[in-house]
Amino acid sequence: VPKTTRTVPSGSREFERIAWLSQLFAKQPRPASVMLGIGDDAAIVKTGRNHWVWTVDACVQGVHFDWRWLSPIEVGWRSFHAAVSDVAAMGASPLAALCSLALPKDVQGKVFRGIAQGQARAARSLGCAIIGGNLTRASEVSVHTTVLGATTRPICRAGARIADEIWVFGNLGAAAAGLIVAQRKTLEQQTLAERWCARQWRRPTALIRAGRSLRKAAHAAIDVSDGLVADLGHVADASCLRAVIDAEALDQALDTRLHKAARALDRTALEFALFGGEDYALIAAGPARRRPDGARAIGQFEKGSGVWLQTATGRQRLSPAGFDHFR
Amino acid sequence: VPKTTRTVPSGSREFERIAWLSQLFAKQPRPASVMLGIGDDAAIVKTGRNHWVWTVDACVQGVHFDWRWLSPIEVGWRSFHAAVSDVAAMGASPLAALCSLALPKDVQGKVFRGIAQGQARAARSLGCAIIGGNLTRASEVSVHTTVLGATTRPICRAGARIADEIWVFGNLGAAAAGLIVAQRKTLEQQTLAERWCARQWRRPTALIRAGRSLRKAAHAAIDVSDGLVADLGHVADASCLRAVIDAEALDQALDTRLHKAARALDRTALEFALFGGEDYALIAAGPARRRPDGARAIGQFEKGSGVWLQTATGRQRLSPAGFDHFR
Repeated sequence: VPKTTRTVPSGSREFERIAWLSQLFAKQPRPASVMLGIGDDAAIVKTGRNHWVWTVDACVQGVHFDWRWLSPIEVGWRSFHAAVSDVAAMGASPLAALCSLALPKDVQGKVFRGIAQGQARAARSLGCAIIGGNLTRASEVSVHTTVLGATTRPICRAGARIADEIWVFGNLGAAAAGLIVAQRKTLEQQTLAERWCARQWRRPTALIRAGRSLRKAAHAAIDVSDGLVADLGHVADASCLRAVIDAEALDQALDTRLHKAARALDRTALEFALFGGEDYALIAAGPARRRPDGARAIGQFEKGSGVWLQTATGRQRLSPAGFDHFR
Repeated sequence: VPKTTRTVPSGSREFERIAWLSQLFAKQPRPASVMLGIGDDAAIVKTGRNHWVWTVDACVQGVHFDWRWLSPIEVGWRSFHAAVSDVAAMGASPLAALCSLALPKDVQGKVFRGIAQGQARAARSLGCAIIGGNLTRASEVSVHTTVLGATTRPICRAGARIADEIWVFGNLGAAAAGLIVAQRKTLEQQTLAERWCARQWRRPTALIRAGRSLRKAAHAAIDVSDGLVADLGHVADASCLRAVIDAEALDQALDTRLHKAARALDRTALEFALFGGEDYALIAAGPARRRPDGARAIGQFEKGSGVWLQTATGRQRLSPAGFDHFR
């Protein structure tokens, strides 16, 4: 499965650099109101009874997007939803955003306007106003989006408990299949199922309502930007547990359109769901009795470590086999 | 005076683009807690009795810095102080920051570590912890820094009143002189005065304490990133007034080391102070009776528009003659 996403496999240079930064910045004195630092989807700042959840996310030409496959409006839309998704994954409602936009000197006006219109549409769709930002020259287009959200109870990556179910919201795998479809076929050549997948990839949606439903239910949560195995692995690692995916339950949780599109691409829907990125689906850990509406259980947490796949014939440990920005 | 800064002259493409963005994003529904949108140094979000001040600032290789003149540690330091300066200019104390760092694939480890160490030192020096961020690949180095600050009373660009004094904190002009010194002379060739100027440019300081002293005193404030004339012009425009700089008072407010260095460069200190950027000095408007300790009065506001220079022989209107990213 081709990846344009940002998995950070342990042992990789990016992983090591983040760990190094985390140590460096941890040495600083920190106000008591700051509850969580580096290593989660977002930082948390306590203010009165509320918690503010704060994230920054980047979307860079040639790394996160390619003008051959995405329009400026889609780049604006995706970059905004991707940033808000980090806030949604912590159970927070987005309040407002700032956008720092870098543009080449000779960028066309319609590219600039398209990106901004995509951001504005995304902001409206999510009820998250863009209240400021920065505009600078650069040699390539990049969009850095910072989002503030609020919640009474932030949900982190750490905190999953033994026997918690693994919950999924959203369409795992569809974006990864949609990326291949968009690269290989014109709109006219695409089946309805393929078009749906391509649309999931072009126009992802940050799952704010799903994230909010987790506040009283989940012990841990994350959004799937790098693939289920990679991101579920972060929850398992942070919670010091093993995540066991039930292959049949996962397969049944996937959209029939993904199954159809995968067959046409000589792949399986499961493969896309496990390793494909840019879903902006949410995964969470919580007790079965509290499973929220709309969540599908696809496995559970147990003692141990790593992410495993349970099939009718046995169990195997999965590796994210991700894409490392710096390799 | 050579500029590496980011003045946005009216009528320029960048200015028009910001105006266009401001209109586009203003159409969104906005929560009642959001008090100020695009067009000031930072956005304001009200939370209880406090106001949070929130900014994002970018520092891009080849646009804001050049490896010939600055080390990675200095780039980290400057980018951080520049972002915090926006918060200081609104009278707020910085709480925390997120840093979104973009690095080329083949960037050396020492460049990455240097930038981060510069950020960490700056964060410690300002009591503003870095609590998260983002790391991405890109074709050039860029640092996007978002800062949250808190204040009981945010000070905006608009609000200066007739007969308010123009106050200055910090070393106007020294950074612009220091940039030329750094480009033309090795450390050994520099006089003490020139070294001091170069250091002001390499290691600017966000004036948090000065900003805080404005809370009960000033009607309007801004930080000088693009030169006194440009930034004072923003206050004058936003306040619908004319700012009149007293040439003699300004000249006396400048450091003697700047006067010395300027003479050696065949320039005047006044020139550097009026048109040089990257000072991160603060300017504010307020009544004489409330002038805070450490503020120097360099003129006053009156009816009219624009920025004017009053000398013994008369008055002239000044134009920022700034640097436009997109021209």
